[in-house]
Amino acid sequence: MTEDNGDADRFVEEHERQINDLLQEVDDPADAASDDDGFSMQLGGLELGRRDFVKAGAATGLASAAGAFAGCQTALPESATPSDSGGSGSQGSSAAHSHVVEPGEKDEYYGFWSGGHSGEIRVIGIPSMRELARIPVFNTEAARGYGYDDQSSQILEAGGGYTWGDNHHPNLSETDGDYDGEYLFVNDKANGRIARVNLKYFETDAIVDVPNTQAVHGCTVLSPDTKYVLGNGEFRTPLPNDGRDVNNPEKYTALFSAVDPESMETVWQVKVDGNLDIVDTGKEGRWAIASCYNSEEATEIQGMTHDDRDYAKVFDVPAIEKAVENGDYEEVNGVPVVDGTRDSDLNKGDEPLVRYVSTPKSPHCVEVGPDGKYAFIAGKLSPTVTMLDLDKIGEVDDPADAVAGRPKVGLGPLHTTFDGNGHAYTSLFIDSQVAKWDIEKAANAELGSSDPVVEKLDVHYNPGHIQALEAMTTDPDGEWLVSLNKLSKDRFLPVGPIHPDNDQLIHIGDGEKEMELVADHPAYPEPHDCIFAHKDKINPATTWDKADYEGEKPFVAEGDSGVERTGERSVHVKASSKRSEYGMFDFTVKEGDEVRLTMTNVEGVRDIIHGVAIPEHDVNLAIAPQDTREVTFTADDPGVYWIYCTYFCSALHLEMRSRMIVEPRD
Amino acid sequence: MTEDNGDADRFVEEHERQINDLLQEVDDPADAASDDDGFSMQLGGLELGRRDFVKAGAATGLASAAGAFAGCQTALPESATPSDSGGSGSQGSSAAHSHVVEPGEKDEYYGFWSGGHSGEIRVIGIPSMRELARIPVFNTEAARGYGYDDQSSQILEAGGGYTWGDNHHPNLSETDGDYDGEYLFVNDKANGRIARVNLKYFETDAIVDVPNTQAVHGCTVLSPDTKYVLGNGEFRTPLPNDGRDVNNPEKYTALFSAVDPESMETVWQVKVDGNLDIVDTGKEGRWAIASCYNSEEATEIQGMTHDDRDYAKVFDVPAIEKAVENGDYEEVNGVPVVDGTRDSDLNKGDEPLVRYVSTPKSPHCVEVGPDGKYAFIAGKLSPTVTMLDLDKIGEVDDPADAVAGRPKVGLGPLHTTFDGNGHAYTSLFIDSQVAKWDIEKAANAELGSSDPVVEKLDVHYNPGHIQALEAMTTDPDGEWLVSLNKLSKDRFLPVGPIHPDNDQLIHIGDGEKEMELVADHPAYPEPHDCIFAHKDKINPATTWDKADYEGEKPFVAEGDSGVERTGERSVHVKASSKRSEYGMFDFTVKEGDEVRLTMTNVEGVRDIIHGVAIPEHDVNLAIAPQDTREVTFTADDPGVYWIYCTYFCSALHLEMRSRMIVEPRD
Repeated sequence: MTEDNGDADRFVEEHERQINDLLQEVDDPADAASDDDGFSMQLGGLELGRRDFVKAGAATGLASAAGAFAGCQTALPESATPSDSGGSGSQGSSAAHSHVVEPGEKDEYYGFWSGGHSGEIRVIGIPSMRELARIPVFNTEAARGYGYDDQSSQILEAGGGYTWGDNHHPNLSETDGDYDGEYLFVNDKANGRIARVNLKYFETDAIVDVPNTQAVHGCTVLSPDTKYVLGNGEFRTPLPNDGRDVNNPEKYTALFSAVDPESMETVWQVKVDGNLDIVDTGKEGRWAIASCYNSEEATEIQGMTHDDRDYAKVFDVPAIEKAVENGDYEEVNGVPVVDGTRDSDLNKGDEPLVRYVSTPKSPHCVEVGPDGKYAFIAGKLSPTVTMLDLDKIGEVDDPADAVAGRPKVGLGPLHTTFDGNGHAYTSLFIDSQVAKWDIEKAANAELGSSDPVVEKLDVHYNPGHIQALEAMTTDPDGEWLVSLNKLSKDRFLPVGPIHPDNDQLIHIGDGEKEMELVADHPAYPEPHDCIFAHKDKINPATTWDKADYEGEKPFVAEGDSGVERTGERSVHVKASSKRSEYGMFDFTVKEGDEVRLTMTNVEGVRDIIHGVAIPEHDVNLAIAPQDTREVTFTADDPGVYWIYCTYFCSALHLEMRSRMIVEPRD
Repeated sequence: MTEDNGDADRFVEEHERQINDLLQEVDDPADAASDDDGFSMQLGGLELGRRDFVKAGAATGLASAAGAFAGCQTALPESATPSDSGGSGSQGSSAAHSHVVEPGEKDEYYGFWSGGHSGEIRVIGIPSMRELARIPVFNTEAARGYGYDDQSSQILEAGGGYTWGDNHHPNLSETDGDYDGEYLFVNDKANGRIARVNLKYFETDAIVDVPNTQAVHGCTVLSPDTKYVLGNGEFRTPLPNDGRDVNNPEKYTALFSAVDPESMETVWQVKVDGNLDIVDTGKEGRWAIASCYNSEEATEIQGMTHDDRDYAKVFDVPAIEKAVENGDYEEVNGVPVVDGTRDSDLNKGDEPLVRYVSTPKSPHCVEVGPDGKYAFIAGKLSPTVTMLDLDKIGEVDDPADAVAGRPKVGLGPLHTTFDGNGHAYTSLFIDSQVAKWDIEKAANAELGSSDPVVEKLDVHYNPGHIQALEAMTTDPDGEWLVSLNKLSKDRFLPVGPIHPDNDQLIHIGDGEKEMELVADHPAYPEPHDCIFAHKDKINPATTWDKADYEGEKPFVAEGDSGVERTGERSVHVKASSKRSEYGMFDFTVKEGDEVRLTMTNVEGVRDIIHGVAIPEHDVNLAIAPQDTREVTFTADDPGVYWIYCTYFCSALHLEMRSRMIVEPRD
C-alpha cells in the first residue's frame, strides 16, 4: 500500500527511523515512582529535565506499540533531547501582553470549544479565557433543562436516545467563506452523530445519527457556503453493521458522509479504503481532504502502525454528486453509498471521486490554509507536515506530484494553524512544543528540510489542536493562539486523579514577533478543538422571539393558566411565570396521572430566567423570557410537591412556588 | 406570631414601611422595550442610571407581590435612589491588585462552588478564578463516567435515582474548628438530599435522601468537629408526605435534620413551627441557628410576606440529643422526630430544644462570625442585619434580649462574610452593592443605626452569597472576597437568553483598605455559595490507592484480561488498560448478553487517564491510574462495536481500541 514519492520521502523515512529507534530506547521514568517528587518542583533549573520527562511519557505509546514497554526503566539519555531549536519558554515571567479583560469590558472574540466526552460545547471569551456559557449538545443537563423538557428530550431521542457524546470538531456555518453566525456543527465520535447548535439562542436544535457509520471523527463544513456538513467515519465496520461479517474484518469499511445543514439528513456517503481521521475542505467548494492512519486496515495496534506510509484522501465533491445523480450508488439504510475505494470503476476515469495521496506514516490532521492553496497534513508518527497543493491536485496524474513541501517540524506533529501573515504553527505532541514555520519557504525548500522553522515555544504538556483567531477563514486575525494541551500534570493545584487539560493562550501578534506564553487555562476533560469568531459575527438574541416557535408551542399568558383533565389518567397544566409568581399557586392531580406541564415566562426583560423544579420527579426546566417549555411526567406517588423556581429572580425568589397536590386515587 | 422588641424594632419597622412604599411606586422600566438599548451602552456617564435600572428590576418581585405589577410603567424617580453612601465603583479602570496567576505558578486557595441546579460542585482557584475541576454530585456526567460506571450509578441510585439536584451550600469537614481536608458536604434542595464528596479523590462517595423532608436548603456542619451535617427542610409538607393531609396545610410541617457524616444516615429530626431557610452553627458544638421567612405558614406568596416580623430559630443540639436519648420522640420512616414547635412540652423547660427569636420580616441568611460570638441574620425584606449574641442566648429569659445589634446596611441584605479584622461584609441584593461595616460599632450603636457602615461597593448585579477567604473558620484570611451575583445582564459577550451569573472578585486586603473590584467571572447557572480553603489544607491523591477499594473491586493486572461466560445470557469481561492498549484487542459476546466489564488502569503515572467509550451503548468510563471501574450493560444488537479510549493518552491514542463483536444469537 505504499507509493514511491522520490528522494525527499526517503529522506523523511530515514529521519523517522532515527526517531523510532530513539523512542524505543526510552520509557517513562515516572514509572520509577519519582513522578510526584519530580513534578512537585516549581520551575527554575529543572525545567529542561521536566520537559524531557514529559516527552518520554508521551512517547510511551510508541514504545509500547513497538513492544518495548514492559519492564524497561532506562532513563532518558541527555542525547535523546530531540529539541532542534530552543523553546522561548516565557513561563514564570510576567507576560508583556495581558489577556485580562477589566470589569465592565468585554472580550473581543467568541471561542467555541468542543467538550470532548463531556458532550457539551463551551463558549469561551478571548482573550480573557473566561467560560461564558456551556451549551449541552449530546449530554443531558439540568441547569438549562436540556434533556428534561419535552422539546430537548425529543432532539436527543431523534439522535438515538443516548445521554452523552464525544464531540471533537466544532464548525461555524459560512456564507461567502465567512462566518454567518447562524449555526455551529459538531461531531459525536462515540455514536457517529452530528449536531447543530442554533446561534440565535445558543442551543442545540438538531442531532442526526449518521447511518452506516461508527465514530464520526473528522467533521467540517464545505466552504464557502456550508453546502454540506461532512463527517469522517473513523472505525471500519461491516456495512450495514447488523451482525453480518462481524468476523471478517476484510469486509469492514469506513464511510465519508455528507449531511444537509438545513434538513440535517444524510444525503450521500462514500465508501473508502483504509480509514478516515480528520477532514477539512478547500475554499472553493470542490475538495475535501481527509487523513488515514490505518491504510493497513488492521484491527490491532501493531497492524495499524505496521507500514511506513499511509495516505490522505482527496474527495472531489462535484464528482461525487454527479455519481449520485447518475445513480451510481448502492442504497444502504436509505442513503446512497457510492464506491470510492481505489479499485472502484468510479475512481478510474478522468474525474476520480477520491484521490489517494501517499504520505509518511499515520497522518493525523488536515487543515487547509487561509488562501486555500495548501492542505497541511501533519505527520503524527513522522516529524513532518505534508503540504498538498490544491491548485495542482486536479491536474496531476500522480497525486503525489501535488505535494509542494514537507517541512520537518519536530516530534509528534498533530495540528496546524495560521496567522494570515505567511506562517503556519504546528503542535508537537511528543516535543510539547508549538513550531512556527514559514509556509512559502517550506514550499521551496528541500522536502523534509527543517529550514522553514522560525521558532519553537514550549507548552505544558502534549498539545493536540491549536487554533489562532479566525485561522480557518480566508482572512485570519492573528494576535492570539490557543494550544489545547492534553496533560496539565503539575501546572495547577491538584484536584485528584482526574486532571484538567491545559489550554494555553499564546500571543502571536501579526506573526512578526516571538510567540509569548501568556496564560494557562485549566479545562474540564476533554476539549479537542476550538474555533474563533469575532464578536461582530455572532448576534444572539437576549430574549425569545415568539415567532420562532409559533405553531409548535403555545404562549401561556397570565390569564390562561389552568388545569384541564385530558383523560382518565392525564391532565394538562398550563401556567405563566413572572418574578415571584407562577400562574397558579397550586393545582391538584390524581395519583398515577400523566401530567403535561406547559409553562411560559411572560417577562420581557433580559436575564430574568425562571426555573421549574419538581421535587422527586427529576424535572428541572429553564425558561427564558418570552419562551415556553413543556414537560410530561407521571405523578406516581400521592403527596404534596412544591414546584419552585431555580433561577434566583427577585428578592422574593424563595417565595416563588406552586404546590402540586397529588391526591390518592382511592 | 410577632414579638415586641422595644423602640429599636419600631424604628426598623418604620424604615421598612418607607422602603415598601417606595418599592410599590416603581416597576421595571426594562419592560418598556428599552432594555437592550439601555444596556448596550458601555460604562461612563450612564452608570448611575443603569444601576437604578437594575435595582428597580430586582425590586419587581416585591412590587408584584403587593399586587402592583400589572401595567405600571412609572419611571424610577431620582429621589428613589436608596444608595446612602457612594459606591467606590472601580470598574472600567485597571485594578491595583492583580488576580492573575502567571503560567507555571499556582493559585493560593481552593474555592469550592455549589453549582446550583447543574447539580455539580466546581473547584475554582483563588485568586485566578480559573475553574480547576468539576465534581459531578447529583448530576450524571460522562467525562468522569459519573452515573455511567456501576459504582457511581449505585451512589445515585441509593440517593433516590434522580439525575439532577440543586446544590446550594458546600461545607468542608472540620477537626478542632479548622478544615481537615477530608470531606465536602452539600445539600440538594430539589430532592431533599445531602451528598458527601471525598477530597482525597475529589469525587462523590455518598448521597443520603433525607426522610420526611422536602427541600433541604440550609446545610452546614456542626463545628468544631463535624459531629453532624445539619439540613434545613424549607418546604412544609404533610408528615409523612404519603398522601395524607394534602389539603390541610395547617398540618404541614418542616424538619431540621442531623446526618451522621461517616454513615451518612439521618440520625434525628426536629419538627418546628414556620419554615427553615439558611443555617449555621456556633463554634462550640452547641448552637445551630436557622432563619425562617414564612412564620405565617402560608402557602401563597401574599400570605408568606404578610406579617411584619418572622423569627430565627436557635437549636440547642445537646438538648435535642438528650431528648432523643430519653425517647422523647416519634419515629417516622425510621428516624426519631422530636417536637421542637413552640408549644411543645420539650420547649417549655429550662433547656428548650428550640428558641424562637423575633426578627424583622423574612430573614434569609445566618452566618456566625469568626469568634463565635454573634450570629448575623440578614433581613432580606428589611434593610438590617440582626446580630444575635450567642454567649447570651442560653442565659436570657426572652431570646430577643440576646439581640446585640441591628445595623441598617441597605436594601435586600442577604448574606454576610468577614475579614477577621472586625468587619462584616453584607451583600445587598436590591441595591446591587456590598456593604462593609464595623461589627463592634454595630454592637454598641442604636438598633437600626447605619453608623457602623464603613463603605459600599457597587457589584453587577444582585448579589446573593458573598464569601471572603476562610471566613467561616475561626481565623479568616481576608485579602479576597467573592460576590456571587445572580444577574450579569450586559457584563459579558451575549450568549443567548440564558445568561451567566457574575462572580466578582473583590480585593479587601486586611480590611483596613477600600474594597476594590478586580475581576468579573462568568458562572454557568447557578452557583449559590462557595467556601475557601488554603491549598495546604487540601491534599488530594494524584493516583488511586488500591487499598481504598480492596475487597470491593478487583485489580485487573495485564495478564488477567479475559472473558468468562457467567450464565446463559451473561458474560464477565476483565481487561487492563495502559497507554495505547487495552488488555484485549477484541472479545466476543452473543446478542442479548448482559455484559459486565471490569477495567483497571495499570499505569502508575499521574494524569494518564484512560476512557472506555462503548459506541451505541451509552457508556463512558474514566479510569485514573491504579483505579478499577466496572460497567454492566446489555449487548442488544448484533454487530461490531469499537470500544475506544476517550482520554488522549499518547501519540497512539487513536489506535487504543478494543473490538466488541456481538454475534447474532441464532
